[in-house]
Order: sequence, then C-alpha cells, then structure tokens
Amino acid sequence: MSAIEGLIAEFGRLPGIGRKTAQRLTYHLLKGRPEEASRLSAAIDRVVAEVRPCGECGNLSSEAPCEYCRNSRRDASQICVVEEASDIAAIEASGRFRGRYHVLGGHLSPLDGVGPDELNIAQLVQRLDGGITELIIATNPSVEGEATAAYLHRAVAQFQGLRVTRLARGLPVGGDLEYADGVTIAEAFSGRREM
Amino acid sequence: MSAIEGLIAEFGRLPGIGRKTAQRLTYHLLKGRPEEASRLSAAIDRVVAEVRPCGECGNLSSEAPCEYCRNSRRDASQICVVEEASDIAAIEASGRFRGRYHVLGGHLSPLDGVGPDELNIAQLVQRLDGGITELIIATNPSVEGEATAAYLHRAVAQFQGLRVTRLARGLPVGGDLEYADGVTIAEAFSGRREM
Repeated sequence: MSAIEGLIAEFGRLPGIGRKTAQRLTYHLLKGRPEEASRLSAAIDRVVAEVRPCGECGNLSSEAPCEYCRNSRRDASQICVVEEASDIAAIEASGRFRGRYHVLGGHLSPLDGVGPDELNIAQLVQRLDGGITELIIATNPSVEGEATAAYLHRAVAQFQGLRVTRLARGLPVGGDLEYADGVTIAEAFSGRREM
Repeated sequence: MSAIEGLIAEFGRLPGIGRKTAQRLTYHLLKGRPEEASRLSAAIDRVVAEVRPCGECGNLSSEAPCEYCRNSRRDASQICVVEEASDIAAIEASGRFRGRYHVLGGHLSPLDGVGPDELNIAQLVQRLDGGITELIIATNPSVEGEATAAYLHRAVAQFQGLRVTRLARGLPVGGDLEYADGVTIAEAFSGRREM
C-alpha cells in the first residue's frame, strides 16, 4: 500500500470518518507544510506515551493523580460518576461542579459482555469509604446509562447517609419544544418545578 | 498544554473538524490500543517522509515519476489537467480515462494572489511539445475553475492540431432533476444530445 493510501486507510478507521473525508484530510496534510503534519503525528505519539488512567478516579490524564484528584481546592466530599473520561470536559464546561470525578469506563451492556466487573465500580465503592457525602450519577440519559445508574444506586446502598443524586432530565436549553422527543417532554413534565 | 489538549488542538486544525469532533477522535485513540494510535502517527510520518510532487505532472506520490507517468500502458498522447492531486482519484474511480495527468496545484484566483505563475502551467506547456494530441481540461465546474480553463485554452492556442476539450456539464447521474440548480439545468439543456 502506498504511503498516501496508508494514511487514507488510517484516517478512515477513525469514528465518523468515511473514505471521502479520509482522502480530504490526507491531501490537506500533503498540501500543507510538512511541519504541520508532523505536529499532528507528534501530538498522537505524545498522548500514547503520556496519557494513562488516573489510579484514583479513572480519568485519562498525563498526570498521576489527574488534575481533578490532585486539586485540593475541589470539593473532595462530592463525586460525580461519568461513563467516559471525555464526559468530564462537558461537565467542566458547565462550570457548575467543583468536586471530584469517577470514570466508569463505559456502561453496563450484558449483550456486549460488559458487566459490573468490567467497569471501574469496585474502586468507586472503595472511595466512598472516605468522607464522601454526595454521589452525583451523571451516566448518559440512555437505556444503558439508566441501567448503570440503577445498578450503582443499589451498589452504594450500604453507605448510610450518602446522598445519591442523578442529573435532571428535561428540555435542553435553547432547544425547541416542537422538536423535543416525547420521552424528554414526559421527563420535563414529571420533573417540573415551581416558578 | 496537556497532551490531550494538544492532540485535540491538532485534530481541530484539520478542515471540517470542529472542537467536538477533535475531542471525539482524541478520546477514541485514547480508548483504543496504543498500537492503533501509533499506526496513525506512523502513517502521517510516512507521507511526510515519502510523498513529493511528481517532477513530470505534479501529482503527489511516493514514486518519482508517479505511478501514472511511469505506467507505459497509459496513453501518453492524452493529458488530463486537474486542479489538485486529489482530483485524480475521483477520475480514476470513473475508469474512463487511461492517459496521463497534469496537476495545476489550484486555480487562478487573483484576489488570493494566485496568478498563472503560481500554478504548474509552464511545465504543462513544455509537456505539450512532445506528441500530445488531446488536452482534457478537468478543472472544477466553479467560477475559478472556468476562468482557469479559459486561461489554459488561450495559453495552449499556439499548439496547432492539439485538441482541447472540457468535461461535460449536466445533470449528475442518480441525481434528481427537482433538486438540480438552475445553472446545472441550463448547462444540461445546452449540452443535450440526440437519443
């Protein structure tokens, strides 16, 4: 396989990147300065070399422990559980959470062979021993995310006095009621609040 | 900048890849096996090291001359002029052209400072001295592509007996008349053929 075909094939393996896009990306790099293409390959090599799951929370980070676990100004009494490390960026962007995280590494999915033991749950239970007062479950609002949340809720029932919460479901801000799906509208009704 | 942020930034520099997609690609590589990420970076390094413009036609290739220029079974009397090396793959996929190529490296665009001297035109004129009987102009069906085609047509007027052609414009096959734009339909009318 030629070098060009090789790169098109590698780009094409990435999620959401079809052959046409892979070609476009390849020729973009070829048309640009070689240093720009090399910067991309160096950035890939750097994450491969540096990034590891945080031993505490499972977040992917170049630091050990990760920036959230080592930041003493963050509230160590709250843990927000997410499915993937990439979910943390979305929550940080909201600016509404200043506690610690815990990354499960996916959701329960028996058909794919993902049971509780395949997720980072034992480590979470262990962390709850140390002065945690609230566990905020922020798994995805999907069938699998709900099942995982329900499982977690049962798994931590042993911790008396631990508040276990779940992110609210409802209409997305800036969205249009007309285009919201029925399940979301139903959730928005049952979660409605006094004005 | 952390390794993860660095890779998100580099992916985000690619055309058509916004921050969200750059994050998705980065975390995809992080979730996969390190060898897969390293394969992508190695493929990038390989094109940077190997691929150069063909000295004959300007096509980007690991070989010199490129696979089309060195292939003696291709018709050396026909040259198809394209704007970019990436256009060649689309033409090859059609299976209808078995001649040689010539890559201009863009189109005339005075506002961007791209005049005839910035394109690979002098080299084309030089090639026409050697037994070429047909020049097929396959610049894009855009305003700039048309202007470039018109310029090329004049630039090769000196070659008596050289047939200069342009790819037909008309309705895209498999398309829907209803959704074709007016200019395309007008072209399809003026280029209509006997059945």
